[in-house]
Amino acid sequence: MHKGNGDSLVRAQALAAQEAARLLRNASTDEKNAALLAMATALDEHKGVILEANAKDVAGAEAKGISGALIDRLTLNEARLKSAANGLREVVALPDPVGETIAMTRRPNGLEVGRVRVPLGVIGIIYEARPNVTVDAAGLCLKSGNAVILRGGSEAIHSNVAIVHVMTKALEGSGLPKTAIQIIESTDRVATLELMQQSDLIDVLIPRGGRGLIRTIRENATVPIIETGEGNCHIYVDYNAPLDMARDIVINAKCQRPGVCNAVETLLVHKDLAPRFLPVVGPELLERGVLLKGCDESRKILSGLEVATEEDWETEYLDLALAIRIVDNLEVALTHIETYSTGHSEAILTNDYTNAKIFQEKVDAAAVYVNASTRFTDGQQFGLGAEIGISTQKLHARGPMGLNELTSTKFVIAGNGQIRA
Amino acid sequence: MHKGNGDSLVRAQALAAQEAARLLRNASTDEKNAALLAMATALDEHKGVILEANAKDVAGAEAKGISGALIDRLTLNEARLKSAANGLREVVALPDPVGETIAMTRRPNGLEVGRVRVPLGVIGIIYEARPNVTVDAAGLCLKSGNAVILRGGSEAIHSNVAIVHVMTKALEGSGLPKTAIQIIESTDRVATLELMQQSDLIDVLIPRGGRGLIRTIRENATVPIIETGEGNCHIYVDYNAPLDMARDIVINAKCQRPGVCNAVETLLVHKDLAPRFLPVVGPELLERGVLLKGCDESRKILSGLEVATEEDWETEYLDLALAIRIVDNLEVALTHIETYSTGHSEAILTNDYTNAKIFQEKVDAAAVYVNASTRFTDGQQFGLGAEIGISTQKLHARGPMGLNELTSTKFVIAGNGQIRA
Repeated sequence: MHKGNGDSLVRAQALAAQEAARLLRNASTDEKNAALLAMATALDEHKGVILEANAKDVAGAEAKGISGALIDRLTLNEARLKSAANGLREVVALPDPVGETIAMTRRPNGLEVGRVRVPLGVIGIIYEARPNVTVDAAGLCLKSGNAVILRGGSEAIHSNVAIVHVMTKALEGSGLPKTAIQIIESTDRVATLELMQQSDLIDVLIPRGGRGLIRTIRENATVPIIETGEGNCHIYVDYNAPLDMARDIVINAKCQRPGVCNAVETLLVHKDLAPRFLPVVGPELLERGVLLKGCDESRKILSGLEVATEEDWETEYLDLALAIRIVDNLEVALTHIETYSTGHSEAILTNDYTNAKIFQEKVDAAAVYVNASTRFTDGQQFGLGAEIGISTQKLHARGPMGLNELTSTKFVIAGNGQIRA
Repeated sequence: MHKGNGDSLVRAQALAAQEAARLLRNASTDEKNAALLAMATALDEHKGVILEANAKDVAGAEAKGISGALIDRLTLNEARLKSAANGLREVVALPDPVGETIAMTRRPNGLEVGRVRVPLGVIGIIYEARPNVTVDAAGLCLKSGNAVILRGGSEAIHSNVAIVHVMTKALEGSGLPKTAIQIIESTDRVATLELMQQSDLIDVLIPRGGRGLIRTIRENATVPIIETGEGNCHIYVDYNAPLDMARDIVINAKCQRPGVCNAVETLLVHKDLAPRFLPVVGPELLERGVLLKGCDESRKILSGLEVATEEDWETEYLDLALAIRIVDNLEVALTHIETYSTGHSEAILTNDYTNAKIFQEKVDAAAVYVNASTRFTDGQQFGLGAEIGISTQKLHARGPMGLNELTSTKFVIAGNGQIRA
């Protein structure tokens, strides 16, 4: 037995999840879809009790003096809850990954060796204060045949417990094990630590949250994890980028939704284009309330820029702020990105064929763009359907993770008596 | 900075490996193949110095009173070294996974979203006393564009250092960075611990070894790991299995190479077939020196069986020993396997179509067989080419891991000015 595997409530939940996973992995697509629809209906029907629980959480957070953005993420209303329920209905429409044969070969000795998608088993999701994640994560895990143990932020505990209660009643009614979706009700940090250590029962942990959360989990988990989210994203505007296109993309990548991981944080501009480009894009950004910080060269071209320091190059602002650096050439841009990138989304805007190719080959990130906004790094936008998160690690899954990324494979081998020589 | 990331020699090696990985990920297939061939030639040419170093290791191990099987694994001779060098030549012949586009779609807005294989980056391999692993692992990592840091067993340290020295000289001569292949020369355990903690520099650790090694790494690593190897494998002989086929497969799976992870460890036999099957297979196994342990029912049918205990069902003998249990039906066999399997390789021998299908669907293992020997779980046998190990976890890779399993992917997106609405 490993450390932390004691007789705790979390351990009991993990054991129940493993048992549920055993049943779930052989559930048919019809059974899973029926359960998802029942869960969606139940969320619609029981919105009163959920919104009531949510009001309690919001009041608690306000009493603790928590800030506006977090309160906004925490708050549910009829429209948001409806949207979460409809998210489950969209998952119904996605193809079931389980059972898909992704490869099949006949070997020289006649053995047929196939490779089939199977669920991972038990997935732990550790997330912060957005109760809609509770619904999304439960839906995606169920559709992919996985049991899930949810550990949401303590600020959202009443909302999350209410949502899970409603969903699991629906699950039970549809004939699937209600322990396929469980939530850790204790807000004690020890419970999170226990969750991370059930390596004999939980197949993967997906943390969704800030750098601190992810580091804590990386350092304490014995369960394998998939790191998500951190995005210090760059756009490099090359010497011959069309000015209008570059302006529209930079504004979109910074302003359309600044608080998310695929928003741009640093703008790199080729020195030959900067004198024409910065005067085009700068005023528009300032007009939209973006705080601009720049290198010495960019401050000569554009007024209204604060001084960008080393810290700015390292920072994922997640806000209306942008660091600007003028670079001599593509090589310098590539070195800057190699140094500061978190490996999320990186873009070049150019009309130079060779530079476009070099950028796509050399940049080591989950998503590498030519002439498009970094804001597209998203499961829906890439055509994977709903996503459970965006992996910034290379193992197992990289970039937006859809249903396929919640599966493993097994080899299935059909013979007629083959033995090894 | 994370714990253990200090200014040690291991940290310096990991930094050098990251730098090498940056160069290696854009190396062409021709460059990598030329380096592999040069490494093979160098191993041939410098066999004297390697065999001398190996003789020192073998003498050291014998002086410590180490046992026959380990001495055998540790020992190199001309034939074994030649075979390792030829292994590198075989890797040359395998297709380069890097750069393969595995998916490409055009989205409704015209964005082209492709998914391309890229190297993982830096791979750490922790293994026990077989010096040929040093050559195999280095070759597979290089071909897949990854830098590797090797940490072999202390018994093989002179052999491993000599092999790596020869290989890296060849690497350097061929123009690739010699730090693409590094070995930890200190046999201090602290060095292993440091290796496991370089999560900002090393992308994955692959431990190859026994249960103790793997548990230590799981509990101490902050670098993601892929668990390999442990195989408590079962064969279930169903009520109507053809007797000759079943006999040949069981003998092959137990006796052809008993010390490996895909050898069978427990035989489950349907009660209706047992009175005819055990008298056929039992004497043949005993004749080959297999120690047989059985449940009460099997001991009524076959003499010469010791009593099988709970411990036997749990044990991966890795030796000429086999536990036998008679079961009432497929369900009982499935429950036994669910309880004791390590998720490696499991087989049913049957002529019942429905039972074959149920077994393949319900058994949760890396490789699930119908009517073939479990000994086929191997990269070469499955058609993946050489393998770096057999994963028994579900994340990233499951079953034999070839070159593809040493890669990640990145999304490459080509647009013409798309912004997100």
